[in-house]
Amino acid sequence: MPTLKNDRLLRALRREAVDVTPVWMMRQAGRYLPEYRETRRKAGNFMNLCQNPELACEVTLQPLDRFPLDAAILFSDILTIPDAMGLGLYFEEGEGPRFQHPVTDEDDITRLMVPDPYTDLRYVTDAVSLISRELNGRVPLIGFSGSPWTLATYMVEGGSSKTFSRIKAMMYNRPDLLHRMLVTLADSVSIYLAAQIESGVQTVMIFDTWGGSLSPSSYREFSLSYMTRIVENLKASKSTVHVPVVLFTKGGGQWLEEMADSGCDALGLDWTTDLSDARSRVGDRVALQGNIDPCVLYASPDQIRQQVAKVLDSFGAGNGHVFNLGHGIHPEVNPDHAAVLIEAVHTLSRPYHQ
Amino acid sequence: MPTLKNDRLLRALRREAVDVTPVWMMRQAGRYLPEYRETRRKAGNFMNLCQNPELACEVTLQPLDRFPLDAAILFSDILTIPDAMGLGLYFEEGEGPRFQHPVTDEDDITRLMVPDPYTDLRYVTDAVSLISRELNGRVPLIGFSGSPWTLATYMVEGGSSKTFSRIKAMMYNRPDLLHRMLVTLADSVSIYLAAQIESGVQTVMIFDTWGGSLSPSSYREFSLSYMTRIVENLKASKSTVHVPVVLFTKGGGQWLEEMADSGCDALGLDWTTDLSDARSRVGDRVALQGNIDPCVLYASPDQIRQQVAKVLDSFGAGNGHVFNLGHGIHPEVNPDHAAVLIEAVHTLSRPYHQ
Repeated sequence: MPTLKNDRLLRALRREAVDVTPVWMMRQAGRYLPEYRETRRKAGNFMNLCQNPELACEVTLQPLDRFPLDAAILFSDILTIPDAMGLGLYFEEGEGPRFQHPVTDEDDITRLMVPDPYTDLRYVTDAVSLISRELNGRVPLIGFSGSPWTLATYMVEGGSSKTFSRIKAMMYNRPDLLHRMLVTLADSVSIYLAAQIESGVQTVMIFDTWGGSLSPSSYREFSLSYMTRIVENLKASKSTVHVPVVLFTKGGGQWLEEMADSGCDALGLDWTTDLSDARSRVGDRVALQGNIDPCVLYASPDQIRQQVAKVLDSFGAGNGHVFNLGHGIHPEVNPDHAAVLIEAVHTLSRPYHQ
Repeated sequence: MPTLKNDRLLRALRREAVDVTPVWMMRQAGRYLPEYRETRRKAGNFMNLCQNPELACEVTLQPLDRFPLDAAILFSDILTIPDAMGLGLYFEEGEGPRFQHPVTDEDDITRLMVPDPYTDLRYVTDAVSLISRELNGRVPLIGFSGSPWTLATYMVEGGSSKTFSRIKAMMYNRPDLLHRMLVTLADSVSIYLAAQIESGVQTVMIFDTWGGSLSPSSYREFSLSYMTRIVENLKASKSTVHVPVVLFTKGGGQWLEEMADSGCDALGLDWTTDLSDARSRVGDRVALQGNIDPCVLYASPDQIRQQVAKVLDSFGAGNGHVFNLGHGIHPEVNPDHAAVLIEAVHTLSRPYHQ
């Protein structure tokens, strides 16, 4: 491992002092960038892009060549694990992810096997190794996975859902089946993230995109408990280096205290929670990552700067803040606006670190 | 006004004692009922159904003929006001609401006029009068409107949106314009709800379907402040009878204390907040309405009863609970399951009121 030239992200995640607040953006390698659209065109489709380590590396690095970001994030999809389980992930243009073979009954669940990350998901570990080498210590590389609950929703619904009728019918009628599936998924995510760490990522994030669709007690039982299990697995591992773990439940603003109890190092926040409130609720137990409304990037440069200032002010002085959007950057955003945001974070955060 | 034979809803909204917890369901007159689908077929399309007082009355009463519900809710749409402003509301099958003439610039906003509920929205006040007469005091009738922010999102986006890019660009770049529009909408909603009350509804609910897409400070400035204004207008009116006002912000679980400060009588809650927590946060200032996950209705009768018991237990003993779903009933739900839920609320809540 080459020495990190910019370790702001890792320091902030460990709640150590930094010169300026580190910043990265969810989906920073994505459709708002013309160079990304060009590479994706070359790849033919989204899955080819994910599964080709050279192209995945290329798009991972693209935003870093444009912007002084403080981290790279592996270009991949949250649904690689169910795809490796044989569900057949594919994307219809403008439709979101779909599975050819969704989980429909007990037999389907019995057949689910924990994928071997070094064979079944080799394209991911290869991409991580390649990106690590290419980054050469410029900034840290972030690895990630979907949360077990979030993976399960797509696997049972067969794609995106507004109502989650199938998975929730299973949750209420056959919680035993859902738990069996979630155990397999939590084991899969644990070794998948461990393999990403062994291949070179320096922190990992668990995306619980759909945890916010649950009631508090269901969230605890079907989502948070399995994320906690993954955190414990990663922290207990004797073979894997211990890296900061970030949990992000979209719409989980009401459950931050419990999320912090998972043993994770940081919480990702969407924009519906004030950082000042979040900070007073979780204290110094975890760092906070977030949380500007991605729609701020539709505003004028002046307005973007003002909104960045508000978010920085909401966190206030002290350690443990990683600036990010509260959700992925939208495809229609002007890249110059992203540049304004990143520059504003670095410039305007300096006084908070003196 | 005939004397109410069943006043549980109004008593609960005023936090007075009841024999059992009153229950109604958002979208209780809706697609899950075969008799509703039949009437809608007769009407030709959804707008005809809304705009024909006899048919609107028919579908409003349908769920009451099936189930021992404790309230009727006016059958209408949240977007009647912008339609009356000339935006041309229509529905594409499976697409949600659309406007022929969305608000795109300052001129469009300048042209917006407060509709006269007794002429421009006569089909609503007529429907209310007719339903009131037909109900003849059986149960109270609930009136409603979309919140100013929620109406504005549809008016500017031209329909449903996942990202709210247009309205948020306006919010960040031209807050003055958005405020101008929201003032007109708040005035419109105030006199619209007053007209519903004068025509016979005995409580009103403001649906803030999209308030949860905002940051806390934007929620305060662009949604809650205008709902507060409506509550104040209704409470200050010398000509209108004072009826309980319910505020419901989907995804607003983090802001309950501030919502209770609006002067409203009750808060509607989605299922992401525990009623026990909500109760301890808002104290005895407001009643609470909700909040079972509508997906519980996909479960078996046994499971439905267990989940109802959990929600009742979460609120606990005492006054001020109206049982409801945390969102509208889904179209695929078996009506027999709704019957199980309603029966369970009445049976299982009795001990909490002794």
